[in-house]
Amino acid sequence: MMAETQQEDFARIDAYWRAANYLSIGQIYLFDNPLLREPLTRAHCKPRLVGHWGTTPGLNFIYAHLNRVIKAQDLDMIYVIGPGHGGPGLVANAYLEGTYSEVYPDVSQDVRGIKKLFKQFSFPGGIPSHVAPETPGSIHEGGELGYALSHAFGAAFDNPDLIVGCVVGDGEAETGPMATSWHSNKFLNPARDGAVLPILHLNGYKIANPCFLARIPEEELLKLFEGYGWAPVLVEGHEPDIMHPKMAKAVDAAIAKIKAIQADARTNGFNGRPSWPMIILKTPKGWTCPKEIDGLRAEGYWRAHQVPMGDMDKPGHVHILEKWMRSYRPEELFDEDGALIPELQELPPKGSRRMSANPHANGGLLLRDLRLPDFRDYAQDVPAPGGSMAEATRVQGEFLRDVMRLNLQQGNFRVFSPDENNSNRWQAILEVTNRCYVADIYDYDDHLSPDGRVMEVLSEHQCQGWLEGYLLTGRHGFFSCYEAFIHIIDSMFNQHAKWLKVCNEIGWRRPIASLNYLLSSHVWRQDHNGFSHQDPGFLDHVAAKKADVVRIYLPPDANTLLSVTDHCLRSRNYVNVVVAGKQMAPNWLSMDDAIRHCTAGIGIWTWASNDEDSEPDVVMACCGDVPTLETLAAVDMLRQQLPELKVRVVNVVDLMKLQTPQQHPHGLSEGDFDALFTPDKPVIFAFHGYPALVHRLTYKRRNHQNIHVHGYQEEGSTTTPFDMTVLNHLDRFSLFQAVIDWVPRLATRAAYAKQAIRDKLLDHRRYVDEHGEDLPEVRDWRWGGGRISSRIADTSADNV
Amino acid sequence: MMAETQQEDFARIDAYWRAANYLSIGQIYLFDNPLLREPLTRAHCKPRLVGHWGTTPGLNFIYAHLNRVIKAQDLDMIYVIGPGHGGPGLVANAYLEGTYSEVYPDVSQDVRGIKKLFKQFSFPGGIPSHVAPETPGSIHEGGELGYALSHAFGAAFDNPDLIVGCVVGDGEAETGPMATSWHSNKFLNPARDGAVLPILHLNGYKIANPCFLARIPEEELLKLFEGYGWAPVLVEGHEPDIMHPKMAKAVDAAIAKIKAIQADARTNGFNGRPSWPMIILKTPKGWTCPKEIDGLRAEGYWRAHQVPMGDMDKPGHVHILEKWMRSYRPEELFDEDGALIPELQELPPKGSRRMSANPHANGGLLLRDLRLPDFRDYAQDVPAPGGSMAEATRVQGEFLRDVMRLNLQQGNFRVFSPDENNSNRWQAILEVTNRCYVADIYDYDDHLSPDGRVMEVLSEHQCQGWLEGYLLTGRHGFFSCYEAFIHIIDSMFNQHAKWLKVCNEIGWRRPIASLNYLLSSHVWRQDHNGFSHQDPGFLDHVAAKKADVVRIYLPPDANTLLSVTDHCLRSRNYVNVVVAGKQMAPNWLSMDDAIRHCTAGIGIWTWASNDEDSEPDVVMACCGDVPTLETLAAVDMLRQQLPELKVRVVNVVDLMKLQTPQQHPHGLSEGDFDALFTPDKPVIFAFHGYPALVHRLTYKRRNHQNIHVHGYQEEGSTTTPFDMTVLNHLDRFSLFQAVIDWVPRLATRAAYAKQAIRDKLLDHRRYVDEHGEDLPEVRDWRWGGGRISSRIADTSADNV
Repeated sequence: MMAETQQEDFARIDAYWRAANYLSIGQIYLFDNPLLREPLTRAHCKPRLVGHWGTTPGLNFIYAHLNRVIKAQDLDMIYVIGPGHGGPGLVANAYLEGTYSEVYPDVSQDVRGIKKLFKQFSFPGGIPSHVAPETPGSIHEGGELGYALSHAFGAAFDNPDLIVGCVVGDGEAETGPMATSWHSNKFLNPARDGAVLPILHLNGYKIANPCFLARIPEEELLKLFEGYGWAPVLVEGHEPDIMHPKMAKAVDAAIAKIKAIQADARTNGFNGRPSWPMIILKTPKGWTCPKEIDGLRAEGYWRAHQVPMGDMDKPGHVHILEKWMRSYRPEELFDEDGALIPELQELPPKGSRRMSANPHANGGLLLRDLRLPDFRDYAQDVPAPGGSMAEATRVQGEFLRDVMRLNLQQGNFRVFSPDENNSNRWQAILEVTNRCYVADIYDYDDHLSPDGRVMEVLSEHQCQGWLEGYLLTGRHGFFSCYEAFIHIIDSMFNQHAKWLKVCNEIGWRRPIASLNYLLSSHVWRQDHNGFSHQDPGFLDHVAAKKADVVRIYLPPDANTLLSVTDHCLRSRNYVNVVVAGKQMAPNWLSMDDAIRHCTAGIGIWTWASNDEDSEPDVVMACCGDVPTLETLAAVDMLRQQLPELKVRVVNVVDLMKLQTPQQHPHGLSEGDFDALFTPDKPVIFAFHGYPALVHRLTYKRRNHQNIHVHGYQEEGSTTTPFDMTVLNHLDRFSLFQAVIDWVPRLATRAAYAKQAIRDKLLDHRRYVDEHGEDLPEVRDWRWGGGRISSRIADTSADNV
Repeated sequence: MMAETQQEDFARIDAYWRAANYLSIGQIYLFDNPLLREPLTRAHCKPRLVGHWGTTPGLNFIYAHLNRVIKAQDLDMIYVIGPGHGGPGLVANAYLEGTYSEVYPDVSQDVRGIKKLFKQFSFPGGIPSHVAPETPGSIHEGGELGYALSHAFGAAFDNPDLIVGCVVGDGEAETGPMATSWHSNKFLNPARDGAVLPILHLNGYKIANPCFLARIPEEELLKLFEGYGWAPVLVEGHEPDIMHPKMAKAVDAAIAKIKAIQADARTNGFNGRPSWPMIILKTPKGWTCPKEIDGLRAEGYWRAHQVPMGDMDKPGHVHILEKWMRSYRPEELFDEDGALIPELQELPPKGSRRMSANPHANGGLLLRDLRLPDFRDYAQDVPAPGGSMAEATRVQGEFLRDVMRLNLQQGNFRVFSPDENNSNRWQAILEVTNRCYVADIYDYDDHLSPDGRVMEVLSEHQCQGWLEGYLLTGRHGFFSCYEAFIHIIDSMFNQHAKWLKVCNEIGWRRPIASLNYLLSSHVWRQDHNGFSHQDPGFLDHVAAKKADVVRIYLPPDANTLLSVTDHCLRSRNYVNVVVAGKQMAPNWLSMDDAIRHCTAGIGIWTWASNDEDSEPDVVMACCGDVPTLETLAAVDMLRQQLPELKVRVVNVVDLMKLQTPQQHPHGLSEGDFDALFTPDKPVIFAFHGYPALVHRLTYKRRNHQNIHVHGYQEEGSTTTPFDMTVLNHLDRFSLFQAVIDWVPRLATRAAYAKQAIRDKLLDHRRYVDEHGEDLPEVRDWRWGGGRISSRIADTSADNV
């Protein structure tokens, strides 16, 4: 290999690099005269210059060198770009390789095409300045910094032949998520997974500040990455003639080392975590732009971050630009028609070896359906509503165990969790696989192995980043997380949802598996952890995103959770958020009923209602496991104490049903909504999360002013489960009270009941304060005390 | 000092440690019989065991050793605890030092008090299991992992005599925010700031998994921290007799090194970033608990994480517990009354030297008001509404420059930003101070100095964590951030808001300065960055938190921003979120009007309205700078094209005015709301963020069904400023159109206008697509074209 390197024509690589740089600058500045075939004028420049140059020449340099080694060794590589505003460089390279014109035929391989390429960049209706979904070869937009390496590792998992080149900017390197993601090497198995080749690009500056990794002694820098478990090689300089051979040597050595590690592990079996190669590339920011502009330092300084000359109306700037662009000698690079000269066209890899056309970077192309067991086989037997109990997520874990088992051979399914897999009751999965661990393992360790497919690390950022990378390259997964702390990745979710939204608008991007969240250890059961661990607000956060990419499910029991889980694993291009409890709780629906209920997403529980075919006096709506339990307990009291009251119970599994069809594709029509919730009767709505979310989803509904939502109000800390509901007025007594308050003409008749409720709540307070446990009558409550439930078992087939 | 160490009575330290461990276990398990003066029975144990033991003995061990050195050297130290569930240990130590009984007299220094101490832990109405605000000496709850070290550094900044002992759990050490926060040493000036002594506590396990830093070779571990720039010392073992002298030696050496570094920098001036000491403490998880329980490994394993014996009904468990607790020999530690024996009472430091009573950990005690310049002095001259222009945040930066200047001597004000200080237009601050930088500085660097008070690092987590630590110890600050990426710290904001909410309920916690955010580079002006950088949802996130701690302001121009900024800097115990633009935009209000408007928080802009004292036909409401501009432009068109239409313009600065007074203390009364928005007229509401937020805040209002909100709909990417509003229907034409749509009987009469709007939008589209710039008539638009504005200048004093 090294011999081949010696034979490389570095002049040709340099020419290719110049072509990419030229096209990058053209995108930022030029409106016309793309190949400078006439003297440049102000009119040839864009009116508003809104790109960034700083990171681009380095990205192009690396690209050219990865191309060299891909071609020389027929490698399967993709390129993940951490730095923001790397768009021009990657677009330029995709264009040079021909991919861009293949997916966007209008941007052709000629002068006309180059002009289009230039104009569209950062232009209304054009393409953004990051490595956005519009960019062929990208699985990572960059710009929101911190996740490049997590994405790269996610892409490498279970792709033994893939090498992911990953550029980490030195700005990004200051972020927390990036700082821990270097430890991903403790979770990558050289026998099974592909490789990640990180290239830490120290160009020294961010928007306006130096980067600290470029401002520590070399000894410290190398120790840091050795301490992270890598074998770093430093490539530093600015003279192209010197840098090309240096970089080629470093890349060749890195690839050789990767191959040696893999060959050893694949021949002799895994025998310890290897020290993988990485490259630290130190080049000037804005490399090859003018050293000074208007007497101020440009190349190698923060002023090169954005557009080195932002104001083209300033005298002399057009001239500086022209001189700068001509320094790349475009006339040597493009032929008469504007096509890249044949000698350079030969340089990059061909077909799917092009990083811009590698199918891993358009994961839907490689996506294979999961082999799924029949989720009905995991059904809980429900002799009557509330007639059996289960830990819903434990049942889900049994289903997922067999999903895992059936796809072990395909090797395209993993689950991810911040050290919460077992806490969230997915233990069963460990019956068929282990936790993935490539750091030291002791003999008494519990289900740890380099071959494991349960990814556990105490970093929600890493879980999310790995999973995204895994999905974007065409595989499947599920992320289980404590509900409160999923907010840690709010911003990452945003970016993924945005990515999906844009992909939906790009024909050549193929659908990928949905990003599935199980949120458990939820707000109502933080008995151990208290106030700091209570937060149901991720639902609010998700609901703000584009309706065509987000789905929110709150199955009330184990069978509904199974049905929802099956649905999520089959879906594509969504973010599915599933909230479910892990504590022992009643099963309400048989599997058949659960399927019907989940298919509808919302429905009347006729077995719990007594309004028959008439209008009810009140609708008791519920969404979430604990709210459903408390609602049914309240209904039970109503049935006993106010038997003449006509009560309808509506349960919501699919939260987006509450919106209108204009707002969300799942939204109920006006007629259907009114048929469930009535046009004018009081609705007492017990909701898992913040009440405001239900108001926000239903404000367009006719009966909205009669919807009274009970939910989490940021009250309660370490206390009993029932006390949490009392403190937030979601408990059965408060729901009963609400019925009395809101059903007209009931208040006086129900005075006796009001007093009884007050007494009950006092009993509760006294008992809990003394014993630290809930009242036995609350703990032991069963739907209908056996009385109603046995009756309704007969009619359960009527569920919507 | 080392000599002193030799003379220490390690047996006494061990006894003190045993006392703390004993009290910790008692909190987790015992309901009665606190000092085991009778044989332990099931009835003495709590019915539900909901604590955690795993981290506690290590925390207590460190506490005892820090106490030793504090007393020996009269040190000023506080103790920041990263690990979750460290509550029992810290409460035990605060109790042993007497602080707990001082702030909670009911928990007295006797058997009765110990019984109360035990019962309250993780008990309804009691205290949580984390180091929550209820714990004296705590500024950091732990549990949401990742921020201990950032908080510690925030506490150390500008506190030259303070040493912050900071325990980092090995679980927490896997998180991203923690992984980058080790680099905080590049921002701490030994001449000016205090010191942080990190103690990385490797006890090997998280909830159910090993921690990777405990599973890498020692050489790698040490290199990693040397690479981070620290001088690590490893203290490893499990036999108390050996560990006490080892730890004492390491602590003495660390303190000596800290003092030497500080003495050098303070005598000879800052001369380079020092290599600060840190301790890596490797002890078994659940240290000193039974080695095995029920035949399964307990001490030194993940099973010791929570309650080693969760089920006290299981035969033999009560006996195991009794034996375990008696192993600490309580009878040697507490006297007849249940008080700590005098010999041990002498051991800890006294008064405010106790870490549990150090005033830095109750920052409000030390809080000094900022010296504030008169914000009116920075007023923009506004000859008429829209009659002058400014970059609002640049004007704010000038005010903040002088806030900085006036408090340089107090040394209690810093600003924080992820490399966005200048981008967000706070350049002026650099006229009086520099960016803080303790890594290498080059001669051509721009305003970098170890003495700087502008904290810039490309990590929102670090900015937030440092600022929180700075505020919690009684200082002031402001965080400026791109609006979209403030979501990165959603979860940290949650925890801080929760902390403030709980502090409001604790008498001895004194109010601290508010956490102030400037969100700029906002959703409407992402011309450079496009879709991935657009997200106004932090407002939704904040609005979900308790009303008594959150405030949201959207000043429409520079003078209102000044007024709001002044208010925020004076406020206490809030989170203030201020959204403001950095681009050149019209000034609407003179300073006097701005003050009146901001004081009211919401009001009719009479100068822009023509409804005089009568009922308007339509209310044009606006909130945010761009929505205000578009609203006024729409009103201008309405005035010209439909002059008989009575239009009222309402501007909202204080978003919480929209809620009811029951929901938020700032909420408008029903009458006031109706007086502004009318009970029944259409309200066209142009909002900065997601429309749903306005619906959620106003759904209880009488006129809610007539409020039609225009806001961000996740549309648009890199495009022109006006095109962004068009794509999201927030533009003047769409607002005009909405008036036609919603004002009864206007539709037919305004048919001509509708056509004109369609034409305008087509003109816009064509122009933007061709030129990449907005239509000149949009760019050049001025309120009333001088016509209306000159008239209204006379009446501007009528503003509410």
